[in-house]
Amino acid sequence: MGKKMPVPAPEVPSGFRVSGTACGIKSDQEALDLTLIVSDQPCTAVGVFTQNQVVAAPVQLSRTRVPAEAVRGVVINSGNANACTGKRGWDDAEQMSQWMAGHLGCESRHVLVCSTGVIGAFLPMEKLNQGIDQAWNQLGSGPLEMERAARGIMTTDTIPKWSERTVEDRKQNFQVAGIAKGAAMIAPNMATMLAIIMTDVPLDQGVADILLREAVEESFNCITVDGHMSTNDTVLLLSRQGHPQTQESSLDSIRTAITEVCQELARAIVADAEGGEHCITIDVEGAENRASARKIASSVANSPLVKTAIHGADPNWGRIVSAAGYAGVEFEEKDLTLWLNGTMIYKEGIPLTIDESSLSRQLQSEFDVSIRLSLGDGDGTARLWTCDLTAEYVRLNADYRT
Amino acid sequence: MGKKMPVPAPEVPSGFRVSGTACGIKSDQEALDLTLIVSDQPCTAVGVFTQNQVVAAPVQLSRTRVPAEAVRGVVINSGNANACTGKRGWDDAEQMSQWMAGHLGCESRHVLVCSTGVIGAFLPMEKLNQGIDQAWNQLGSGPLEMERAARGIMTTDTIPKWSERTVEDRKQNFQVAGIAKGAAMIAPNMATMLAIIMTDVPLDQGVADILLREAVEESFNCITVDGHMSTNDTVLLLSRQGHPQTQESSLDSIRTAITEVCQELARAIVADAEGGEHCITIDVEGAENRASARKIASSVANSPLVKTAIHGADPNWGRIVSAAGYAGVEFEEKDLTLWLNGTMIYKEGIPLTIDESSLSRQLQSEFDVSIRLSLGDGDGTARLWTCDLTAEYVRLNADYRT
Repeated sequence: MGKKMPVPAPEVPSGFRVSGTACGIKSDQEALDLTLIVSDQPCTAVGVFTQNQVVAAPVQLSRTRVPAEAVRGVVINSGNANACTGKRGWDDAEQMSQWMAGHLGCESRHVLVCSTGVIGAFLPMEKLNQGIDQAWNQLGSGPLEMERAARGIMTTDTIPKWSERTVEDRKQNFQVAGIAKGAAMIAPNMATMLAIIMTDVPLDQGVADILLREAVEESFNCITVDGHMSTNDTVLLLSRQGHPQTQESSLDSIRTAITEVCQELARAIVADAEGGEHCITIDVEGAENRASARKIASSVANSPLVKTAIHGADPNWGRIVSAAGYAGVEFEEKDLTLWLNGTMIYKEGIPLTIDESSLSRQLQSEFDVSIRLSLGDGDGTARLWTCDLTAEYVRLNADYRT
Repeated sequence: MGKKMPVPAPEVPSGFRVSGTACGIKSDQEALDLTLIVSDQPCTAVGVFTQNQVVAAPVQLSRTRVPAEAVRGVVINSGNANACTGKRGWDDAEQMSQWMAGHLGCESRHVLVCSTGVIGAFLPMEKLNQGIDQAWNQLGSGPLEMERAARGIMTTDTIPKWSERTVEDRKQNFQVAGIAKGAAMIAPNMATMLAIIMTDVPLDQGVADILLREAVEESFNCITVDGHMSTNDTVLLLSRQGHPQTQESSLDSIRTAITEVCQELARAIVADAEGGEHCITIDVEGAENRASARKIASSVANSPLVKTAIHGADPNWGRIVSAAGYAGVEFEEKDLTLWLNGTMIYKEGIPLTIDESSLSRQLQSEFDVSIRLSLGDGDGTARLWTCDLTAEYVRLNADYRT
């Protein structure tokens, strides 16, 4: 049991440089809190943003600037979300992009902005101004810079998160690499899910947009920690300008690489969730369609009773089956079968007699837990990831004042 | 702070008798676990049942028997939910109704059955047989019998729950009285929400059905503890046969009495929620319609981050506002205003400077917490009740095995 450490940080894909620095936004003055991402040439940039009706200023700004094909960079600060800050928040986000554009020699509309951290407070602009200068001088493309860039966007994360895939092509190899930070929230911070993926594969904005949306649908949209969507959630994909090879097989391997990077980052977020001690994978199969499968998986994933049962190492089929039952999807109880960590514990509507204490010991000792539900012969499947619910989660989110 | 004790138990409405007894289903052999409700004459009976796709045998049976106008009684056991028990579960529920019908001298289809407790286990039928005989001999209509009936349906509840209203009529006074048990769940039990309302007001089944559905919509459907709907939830209304006075004013006072009894029982369930230390009332106003207001209230009520913030006595407008924001209802951030315990803390999209520590002390010292959100000038309003999320909830629901 315990949180897994990531693989070593990758190189930055060619054509990009990154840096992470400390400019004093966080109370720990040595904690990195500013990350820059630079594309040496104008690049293709697409984004997916929070669906919350309450949207932070940097999200409002950045979503007017993508999809685009002449983006030069991204400036990201942690420690302050610049959310619920009205007109001044918008102006501050615009100012951040102007400072970075000054270094790049481009228009500010070719710079994207992300923020994560405390909400309802104004950004310390003087610190940011100096921080951007400082980070500019630290740009690089090695694993060290990649690691610092990943650390610069962390809030309550306990480990920096990155992922990389190589796409092998007949002529040259391409790289897809990304960094991310966690989704769990802790006040007074409102931690956001941020992810930035870079690739030296040439993509036009139309194709990049489709590839990112498909990848997000299979990764970041499949994780839930506490069901609470933030005001700042942002996923960006930056790629070299151009057109991908039109051969289907080539596009497929790019699609796979981007999706796998997003999935690895998404899973890392769940594995590092506040107070979580288990990463739970929920598979639903045999539903009428994907939407139905997803509803059921989501109902199971968000049930505090399922999450506390896993925390308590209890093979509690009743909580899982009943959470499936109230998802708002019609099914027959007699078609329902359930596996926990590969052991069938409920078959076609009837609980099976199993060695409970052995399964419980297994649940306790393994970090990864698998819940699999079959509803019948439908084609609809879905996979979601979540974590268990622990007293530590409550402590982190309730007792921070005392 | 602390859970409020209920008012003294009321008399049973005239024409009904009740009892509660211990027949050994619960491991504590002295704990009451069987409740009978008898109507001396055939009565009108209507019911509202769980919407879960996984439905316990007694619910399957009882919902075929209401609405009806010749019901003679209800038999309810706690300690075993008779859920996920297949054909044998159905036969056992039918057998329970037959035993009770034997005493009543009626057909079994005029008896309703409810169960609550452990799921996936067969009922101890011999104990139930003896228990029904024993409970039959203890029937009465005083406050003592009412209290024992309320205790006989308890599972993880810490206090028995009842409520009563008197309807004043020109000719005679009528009584509405009910008992209920809690909604929070604790494995291996899957505690169910059960409520049985009795009244000596004459109602036909059509009117009774409308009155009960309206009351449930304004009461039991407005509470959430952990969002987990049980396989056994049941609300029954039993009334004297006949037709209500057709004067609108008379029907109104009956409607109000039934709704108030249901609301008082619903609120008692939330106040007694597992591990809960605060009862939170959430009011949403100014929405486009009631459904939108309800979606937003529900999103706030089910957010673990809002529930832990209240537990931590934190006036955290950010968590409340962002939970409203992801409810799936469109609104403008600049129209949003929020009050916590009557203090405006966020006005038209901007957080206000308030005396945080004073508001925090107030949150800590008072059992009742009020969250009020205004979204603009719409007519849609909704009120929901929930409780805070505590480490004790996690302990109760995770650590019961150790």
